[in-house]
Amino acid sequence: MSQHEGDDHAAEEEQHVGEDAEGERHASAMSTESLLAASDDVEEAHGGTQSSHRLLAYSDALLSIIATVMILPVAHTKMQGDEELDENLQLLLSTKLAVYLMTFLIVTVAWAAHIRLFQVIVRIDDTLALLNLACMMLITLLPYTFSLMATFPSHILGILLFCGCVMVIGLIQSVIVLYAFGRPFLLQDQIQACEDRTVCRHHILKVLLRVPVMCLLAAVCSFFCYQLSYVLLALVIFLPYISQGVLWCRDKLLGPAEEDPEQVMFYTFLPSEPLSKERVEAFSDGVYAIVATLLILDICEDNVPEPATVRQRFNDSLVAALRPYGSDYLAYLGSFATVGLLWFAHHSLFLHVAQATRLMGLLNTMSLAFVGGLPLAFRLTHELPHAASRDERRAVQAACVLVFGAGAFQLATWVAALQGSGQRTLRPAVRYGGPEHVFMLAKLTLYPAVALTAFLLTCALSRFSATIFHLMEIATPLAFLLLRLTVRVVLALFRRLFGPQRRQTQNGEENICSGVPFNPLLIG
Amino acid sequence: MSQHEGDDHAAEEEQHVGEDAEGERHASAMSTESLLAASDDVEEAHGGTQSSHRLLAYSDALLSIIATVMILPVAHTKMQGDEELDENLQLLLSTKLAVYLMTFLIVTVAWAAHIRLFQVIVRIDDTLALLNLACMMLITLLPYTFSLMATFPSHILGILLFCGCVMVIGLIQSVIVLYAFGRPFLLQDQIQACEDRTVCRHHILKVLLRVPVMCLLAAVCSFFCYQLSYVLLALVIFLPYISQGVLWCRDKLLGPAEEDPEQVMFYTFLPSEPLSKERVEAFSDGVYAIVATLLILDICEDNVPEPATVRQRFNDSLVAALRPYGSDYLAYLGSFATVGLLWFAHHSLFLHVAQATRLMGLLNTMSLAFVGGLPLAFRLTHELPHAASRDERRAVQAACVLVFGAGAFQLATWVAALQGSGQRTLRPAVRYGGPEHVFMLAKLTLYPAVALTAFLLTCALSRFSATIFHLMEIATPLAFLLLRLTVRVVLALFRRLFGPQRRQTQNGEENICSGVPFNPLLIG
Repeated sequence: MSQHEGDDHAAEEEQHVGEDAEGERHASAMSTESLLAASDDVEEAHGGTQSSHRLLAYSDALLSIIATVMILPVAHTKMQGDEELDENLQLLLSTKLAVYLMTFLIVTVAWAAHIRLFQVIVRIDDTLALLNLACMMLITLLPYTFSLMATFPSHILGILLFCGCVMVIGLIQSVIVLYAFGRPFLLQDQIQACEDRTVCRHHILKVLLRVPVMCLLAAVCSFFCYQLSYVLLALVIFLPYISQGVLWCRDKLLGPAEEDPEQVMFYTFLPSEPLSKERVEAFSDGVYAIVATLLILDICEDNVPEPATVRQRFNDSLVAALRPYGSDYLAYLGSFATVGLLWFAHHSLFLHVAQATRLMGLLNTMSLAFVGGLPLAFRLTHELPHAASRDERRAVQAACVLVFGAGAFQLATWVAALQGSGQRTLRPAVRYGGPEHVFMLAKLTLYPAVALTAFLLTCALSRFSATIFHLMEIATPLAFLLLRLTVRVVLALFRRLFGPQRRQTQNGEENICSGVPFNPLLIG
Repeated sequence: MSQHEGDDHAAEEEQHVGEDAEGERHASAMSTESLLAASDDVEEAHGGTQSSHRLLAYSDALLSIIATVMILPVAHTKMQGDEELDENLQLLLSTKLAVYLMTFLIVTVAWAAHIRLFQVIVRIDDTLALLNLACMMLITLLPYTFSLMATFPSHILGILLFCGCVMVIGLIQSVIVLYAFGRPFLLQDQIQACEDRTVCRHHILKVLLRVPVMCLLAAVCSFFCYQLSYVLLALVIFLPYISQGVLWCRDKLLGPAEEDPEQVMFYTFLPSEPLSKERVEAFSDGVYAIVATLLILDICEDNVPEPATVRQRFNDSLVAALRPYGSDYLAYLGSFATVGLLWFAHHSLFLHVAQATRLMGLLNTMSLAFVGGLPLAFRLTHELPHAASRDERRAVQAACVLVFGAGAFQLATWVAALQGSGQRTLRPAVRYGGPEHVFMLAKLTLYPAVALTAFLLTCALSRFSATIFHLMEIATPLAFLLLRLTVRVVLALFRRLFGPQRRQTQNGEENICSGVPFNPLLIG
């Protein structure tokens, strides 16, 4: 394919894109205006009705803290610097990690349900705000009740507490739905305009109450056979994902099923169901911010030595007293930089996302779950003895795996956005052939590629694993800073290398190429 | 002034306000549209330029975590349940509290500087995002370096580290300013359109670099006389507030001074300078969310007993093993509910704020500083021996003082919004005579009133202080839920009591009254 043609088409595409953007912009401005007008009208009509924006932001902040809270017991597991990672410790760590991952999953399921609920109820009043706060309070108890359940699997108290929490949450949400359907001006415009709102209400309540009913069953079962309770609870948590997966596969194989168009708009579990982009961003920001500062919380609390100790043991030299903490500081800086740059990649990605889907939300959540483990992996990497021990290499490799997972799922989110319904989900600039497409690809590939390289290098050169890791920590921020430049240089290089050859094909296949937008990826 | 006259004025006001709202809405829609258009144009012109919205949200999340981090050492101070609060412990607690308050102040000063900077730079690109992340990383180190400085006041290392951090932050921010002024499309429209941008740049850099230069001086001084360094650092932190206060007083006494209108738009330290409302909300949400979940973090980490302990010491009874933690659970529920309801009051207040000012930001920050202490006070209240000891009363009173402070400063924020320039800062509905005015007053007065009552009651009935406190915890959420109803009932009561009198006047002056909207405050 020729470059000139490519450029030409790129210009065409650009123009189209410009028009699209123009249209979108007008549409969005119009809708903002009409929305503002509408909401003002509603406020005038019904005193106390409010936009739900900030309530949702606060809920997202609370949920992101709660989702990451179970990483703390993992992070604070006692590890002596002079001791090898023995099997007991490994078992303890992996149990706690499993609890962390499960609570992360449970909280994100609750969060997804919360999003779904407040995509139907788009305006709130004071009563709804207070009911939502009560709901949030109960959700914050979930990690604790779950970890009780996980630590004492054969005691029914844990099961009862967990099921009790979930049931009360379900009941409060049902009350919220009933309250909102009693005041239709709180609802989404489509449902507000809908004739048979009772059908909608019925559908939503059915979906909502499924979970508490299952939990009630599980709680009752626990008195007879607690193993059965766990099966029921697993069904509650995984069923939406399983049924989603099955439906998605069926749709891919047999083509989309015919459904009532009104029903499809909400409370389906299809991967292509829209998900509020703002809330995905807010939740991710919360998780990234907490994870980035996780280590400094410990440093602020534990690494200020006692004045008496400094006088007696370190001969009043503060520098000497702080020296043992050196590895903590390095671990903090490393983990902050990594989490910060992963946030940066996430930020760049969602800047170009026009509409998020449930599948993208799921992939994003998985990326976040990996991010949660990073501070730990960095602490292990910096704390373990700097001899070329087997443990050190293992810690470095664990960190590489976590970074790779976090980055790879970000990339997967983008691919899902590109594949599924790219026209709707992504802004023109990063779609296939958009001017930012290749930069975005480079940004999102950088971390997985670096982590993979570091992992392979540590396998080959296990003696230098710490050095490799430190080099990676220093090189990656620089790579991000120089990314735009690097990509330009590489593209120019490609162009120069393949320039003559390309020009030749241009002459031969001009007609076939016409209409193909400029795609930097295909230049080589 | 007669009531009718009042109503009359209210009507006029309301009409004006209606027009204003209309105008505002159109203006905001227009500005959104033009902003969108402008930013799109810019994006087309300069690849990679982005809206700064999410970068700022993430920065706010990081800053709110860091602002509250020094409460953790206070919260985790060891307290035995069977031990009285002795003097040593009180001294330790008050030192740590002082450190918490100072770091809160320092971080909020950094946050205010960050807002000011990004009110001038309204669009970002990748380089700016990465520079900002580096800046954030250094700001997160401030609490730790400050607590080193506070713990070892006579060691110069603490001073050097703190000053070093501040200096590097100042330098990075200067680089950000220079970079942004080199690419004018990143700047605020007014400065972009401005002829002599170099004057603006010079002014901003002068304000920005004042702080690092002072810190450099303090660092140099610390080698000769470390006491002088502290004076210099105190000047850095308090000078803006002092100069603000002096200027404000001068303006009030002598009338506003004449100033260059262009300069006044930004980087002044006047209390009436606009402050981004979104960022005040985001920062407050972060603080409220972290403070609300502070106790559950500890519960999740510490209150899961070891399976072996349960088997051996509690005869395999999980209920018995969890019983000692009962007070922790109650403390968590109480503090979550209180923080949640204070958030609710804050949310209601800022829902009606059209434009925040620096003075409102300052008062809001002070309210947040009180909120930060709440989890602690609640823990103390629930953990101390439930005999009618002097300590229990003191803990209850401390909690009352904190709740009162948090609520009173919220009320002060509202009063500042009403007083200063009510037309610009508040939406019509809550201004004097607006339909929501009295509800807002009731919402914001509820907590200070309840806390004051509880405080006075514990003074009078010190034996029942715990009972009073628990009653307060249960009654307040109910009061919020029933607030709207209560206010209506009280108003109806007033109307019935003073009804005949009103009707009499109404007949005489019916014409004047026509078109007068219902004003609950003026009815009595």
